[in-house]
Amino acid sequence: MSISKEVIEQAHERIKPYIHRTPVISSAGINEQAGCKIFFKCENFQKIGAFKARGAMNAALSLSKADLEKGLATHSSGNHAQALARAAKLLGVPAYIVMPSTAPEVKKRGVKGFEGKIFECEPTLAARETTLAEVIAQTGATEIHPFNNYDVMAGQATAAKELFEDTDKLDVILAPVGGGGLLSGTALAAKYFSSSTQVIAGEPEGADDAYRSLKSGKIEPSQAKSVADGLLTSLGDKTFPIIREHVKEIITVSDHEIIAAMRMVWERMKIIIEPSCAVPLAALLKDKKKFTRKNVGIILSGGNVDLERACNLFVEYK
Amino acid sequence: MSISKEVIEQAHERIKPYIHRTPVISSAGINEQAGCKIFFKCENFQKIGAFKARGAMNAALSLSKADLEKGLATHSSGNHAQALARAAKLLGVPAYIVMPSTAPEVKKRGVKGFEGKIFECEPTLAARETTLAEVIAQTGATEIHPFNNYDVMAGQATAAKELFEDTDKLDVILAPVGGGGLLSGTALAAKYFSSSTQVIAGEPEGADDAYRSLKSGKIEPSQAKSVADGLLTSLGDKTFPIIREHVKEIITVSDHEIIAAMRMVWERMKIIIEPSCAVPLAALLKDKKKFTRKNVGIILSGGNVDLERACNLFVEYK
Repeated sequence: MSISKEVIEQAHERIKPYIHRTPVISSAGINEQAGCKIFFKCENFQKIGAFKARGAMNAALSLSKADLEKGLATHSSGNHAQALARAAKLLGVPAYIVMPSTAPEVKKRGVKGFEGKIFECEPTLAARETTLAEVIAQTGATEIHPFNNYDVMAGQATAAKELFEDTDKLDVILAPVGGGGLLSGTALAAKYFSSSTQVIAGEPEGADDAYRSLKSGKIEPSQAKSVADGLLTSLGDKTFPIIREHVKEIITVSDHEIIAAMRMVWERMKIIIEPSCAVPLAALLKDKKKFTRKNVGIILSGGNVDLERACNLFVEYK
Repeated sequence: MSISKEVIEQAHERIKPYIHRTPVISSAGINEQAGCKIFFKCENFQKIGAFKARGAMNAALSLSKADLEKGLATHSSGNHAQALARAAKLLGVPAYIVMPSTAPEVKKRGVKGFEGKIFECEPTLAARETTLAEVIAQTGATEIHPFNNYDVMAGQATAAKELFEDTDKLDVILAPVGGGGLLSGTALAAKYFSSSTQVIAGEPEGADDAYRSLKSGKIEPSQAKSVADGLLTSLGDKTFPIIREHVKEIITVSDHEIIAAMRMVWERMKIIIEPSCAVPLAALLKDKKKFTRKNVGIILSGGNVDLERACNLFVEYK
């Protein structure tokens, strides 16, 4: 395992000029319904509307000057794409983003807004990888993987680090899990900065590969069927070992539970979160007893959702 | 005019234990589109989701003990109703709320959540007033008018007072105008706490009674046709003179402009505001040149909107 406490501290110093220190907020109404005290770390207010701004920026700033100048490349269904495009723009280098044609419009607009060059492909992993390999061959750009990259993981760890700094002792911290970049970073931040805090993940039932991977002891493929479109990928060989060692439990939730939690945050907290972001709260509400009277941190991962899509989800899952 | 600087300062001290000091936030994206620097005072994060918590609480705390014990009563289409029910609950007295049958469901639920007793009536001013008079005759409760009440107006003034305290010099401050409680309070706060700041209001075209009242020099009736359901009433005899004296200009906006501004805030700032709350930003965007390169404060008045209604509005006014 190659991410030390110092690596995370250095990542934090490195990216601080480029990211928001996002607020931590609570809702009396949600606390009452949940039976515990929840501290929400609002990464939906982060630059580009998601925690991914942290990891992408750290990875970009960790490259050599020669590599950086050739540009950054990735395939991503969304927030990482915007995050990388933003990092490239701030550093004055090109970003090459391979996106599935099915990616939400709001996320494509986000990439274009940062002058990222989009290469659309079929929404399969094979198509993404082939297209990305072609782009890299042509440009010499460096691939920055959305999660299976130690610099990215160290960057994502800084969200939980800030949450620990800004709250009294948390009994539990909850994060969502897709590829495991945020979750592995959160687990390492807990280990180094709040070692008595348990780390629990929320995962969609229809993409419960991390849950199954913890059971089987090997990386399982994802069925990739959930409204939580940011959490459809499987774990990586860099994220899985950290999650296996440091994450206490993964709680899976249905799409109905995800959208109900999303609605609760929109209505009670007056803030906008995307479906993937609602997964940890949905997990907490599903398994309330586990959290009774505890201090719980939740990383609100992002707020990038097409309003039209969100509205349709609220109707469909009412 | 019976609201002095000291009255507002005392109101602020009186209500501080019962309200949030709401955050002031900015959006680089919106600033870029607007061509000025906007400081949003987030009263959508206020208790009960709107600035009305301030005025209602100040009015309740200003009553004699004997009057307070008989309870508080009002007719209100929404946020003031919740605010008064909350004030009554916190002070352990009954709240009697006359509401039009057409009031949004989310606002009725809010009143019931604070154990306010709802009396539904036809959505006409006559029906509201008759029903309220009956309730007061039966209970001995004190009417707390939603806006035409000096204690309420002094309470609403505290939002702008905080915004002035938390920002560098503002060239302009913008608020919406319905009955004029928030606008008159904002104008007085500017006069006393930031005298070089101009006060401008936004008003729906379909309820432009304040705009017409400023022209004619007398209180004009409202046509009451707008998506901004919190701004449909006419000015009161206590709010109008203050507005006439201290408000520089009223900019009117169409329902399309209101919903476009609301969408911009939801998408760019990831926060939820109700249609009435989007009116000042809509006014600024409509009349951009007036604000070029200025520091502008905007009171975001509230975030209580049924998600289903908001979604329908986004579709209808796309």
